[in-house]
Amino acid sequence: MRLTRQTNYAIRILMYCAANSGRLSRIPEIAASYSVSELFLFKILQPLVEAKLVETVRGRNGGVRLGRAAAEITLFDVVRVTEESFAMAECFENDAVDCPLIDSCALNAALRKALGAFFEVLESYTIEDLVKDRTDVRLLLGIKDMERQIAAAN
Amino acid sequence: MRLTRQTNYAIRILMYCAANSGRLSRIPEIAASYSVSELFLFKILQPLVEAKLVETVRGRNGGVRLGRAAAEITLFDVVRVTEESFAMAECFENDAVDCPLIDSCALNAALRKALGAFFEVLESYTIEDLVKDRTDVRLLLGIKDMERQIAAAN
Repeated sequence: MRLTRQTNYAIRILMYCAANSGRLSRIPEIAASYSVSELFLFKILQPLVEAKLVETVRGRNGGVRLGRAAAEITLFDVVRVTEESFAMAECFENDAVDCPLIDSCALNAALRKALGAFFEVLESYTIEDLVKDRTDVRLLLGIKDMERQIAAAN
Repeated sequence: MRLTRQTNYAIRILMYCAANSGRLSRIPEIAASYSVSELFLFKILQPLVEAKLVETVRGRNGGVRLGRAAAEITLFDVVRVTEESFAMAECFENDAVDCPLIDSCALNAALRKALGAFFEVLESYTIEDLVKDRTDVRLLLGIKDMERQIAAAN
């Protein structure tokens, strides 16, 4: 059982935008910060934009920013968009599965309860919580350096 | 995020054995009950036997049974054996991952807490809990039919 790489980087993109809330974040700088390709980030951004968790601004000075306040985006909001399936068992998504217990399964109920507990914790954390120690996060993500470079170029 | 098919059938094998605690369960009958191949069940059994959750008895009248009381096997005991990874993010299993946040990551902490809540629920359920309504489970799994067939053959 594991979260997808997509989910992980989706959360990290949102963390980057939250830590960098003063200006638009450019894909090349996020990609450089996390050492991943821009193409990979673009793929992850698409569902986030569709779900309005991220807004894109086009143009030479364009970039991305959070679609709403970081304190109003929970981790559950993100995984709901980025994870393809939370099927703990075949019968979670397919009623026609060939299990004799399907109509009376205590296992299904137990797994749903466990998944509910997992979601509940994710719902209790917002993107804002993850970047609360902003100075630290901005330093680690290289946002301070980036700002210096931008200031020097202008 | 989902549990593997191995985990699902591992739990169902244990449920079968628990519902059928009066005698050894034979692989062909478990396979028939769940409509899966015997080969698949053998693969799943191996780690369960190694972890002493299941015991095998060889011979013509051989079969499998629980390695300890059903009330002493939790769902967490099973997933710990059958799931390959609970890495919610790359950094759960690889310290050398190229993430700038690695030493100070609130996301990692949030995901660990969520996984802990998931495990806690799994630990609160035993195999016995899942087959408590024994009459029902024994009927659904075809164990009653099987016993009639065995009685008739002897």
